[in-house]
Amino acid sequence: MKILIVGAAGTIGRAVTAELGQRHEIIPAGRASGDVRMDITDSSSIRAAFEKVGAVDAVVSAAGKVKFAAFGEMEAADYAIGLKDKLMGQVNLVLIGRRYLAEGGSFTLTTGVLDSDPIRMGTSASMVNGAINAFVMAAAIEMPRGLRINAVSPGVIAEAMKDYAPFFRGFEPVPAARAALAYARSVEGAQTGKVYRVL
Amino acid sequence: MKILIVGAAGTIGRAVTAELGQRHEIIPAGRASGDVRMDITDSSSIRAAFEKVGAVDAVVSAAGKVKFAAFGEMEAADYAIGLKDKLMGQVNLVLIGRRYLAEGGSFTLTTGVLDSDPIRMGTSASMVNGAINAFVMAAAIEMPRGLRINAVSPGVIAEAMKDYAPFFRGFEPVPAARAALAYARSVEGAQTGKVYRVL
Repeated sequence: MKILIVGAAGTIGRAVTAELGQRHEIIPAGRASGDVRMDITDSSSIRAAFEKVGAVDAVVSAAGKVKFAAFGEMEAADYAIGLKDKLMGQVNLVLIGRRYLAEGGSFTLTTGVLDSDPIRMGTSASMVNGAINAFVMAAAIEMPRGLRINAVSPGVIAEAMKDYAPFFRGFEPVPAARAALAYARSVEGAQTGKVYRVL
Repeated sequence: MKILIVGAAGTIGRAVTAELGQRHEIIPAGRASGDVRMDITDSSSIRAAFEKVGAVDAVVSAAGKVKFAAFGEMEAADYAIGLKDKLMGQVNLVLIGRRYLAEGGSFTLTTGVLDSDPIRMGTSASMVNGAINAFVMAAAIEMPRGLRINAVSPGVIAEAMKDYAPFFRGFEPVPAARAALAYARSVEGAQTGKVYRVL
């Protein structure tokens, strides 16, 4: 398979590349690195990237930012960051990418454990992750040409604990390589509309 | 209790008014009717309404629109409608209203069965409902002054079946009066961060 990995230089992206790269051709993409430059917050950048890459068999997204801040300090503009970036960035990747995905191909998006297990400062992450999980479930039943779509919702990634530990006390860290297995299940399996929880 | 009901003239809003109005003082609000005019897509309109009403013990939202269309025809601008209206409209009601809610007061937002049971043409509704459910769960643990926040996720409302039946074949309709009970559970109970599913 020819697999476009968006956010390939990130902690999860590198692990997914290592896992899927053993058996498939990987095209790494990212905002600031990768064979293909792509800013998911910019539709024209997504379009340009797909025009360059052409047809692919799978698109994996391990990209997307949200703002973390105390709920008491969060205003509408702070939520807009995550809605534009992690939510609509990944959704736009699907809306544009669906024209480039080969028959039976798959999208795999990334959410996270805050979709169901909230922490302080995480209201935007929870909102965005819940939105993506539900979008994936709904879009799956209307996908054309046998296309599939899933999400991976990993716990806090072990390799990121040096930055995130104070926010995720008591959460059992998930090694990126373990999370990467769920992306392989999505890409190489046959399920659709599924949220793979890696906890 | 003094309860602000946003979208009071709608099918659910009328039923919630009938249920809670038996025991409490209701202030009906809406885009085009009600004692208080409020357009939840406009922060200044929300602010003006709260300035007029002053402190309340509970805010119930039964308002918010999303676009229904086949996934194949949905583009980013179509999703933006629901994100601005049903999602951020209700979230802004919370962000602004938290300053006017009396200690121990509650917010009750509205989502719907498409959060977990998708239909054709419903990808935006699913996305928005999933976002609100997760936001409510997360915001609950950071609410100040004992404030509570819940969501009600009703099935397709019986009184709306004349318009919605073709989209919801096989879904068991929920009478608005039954859905209204969940709003009473949220407002008059003590739970927080909960999604009340009325199916």
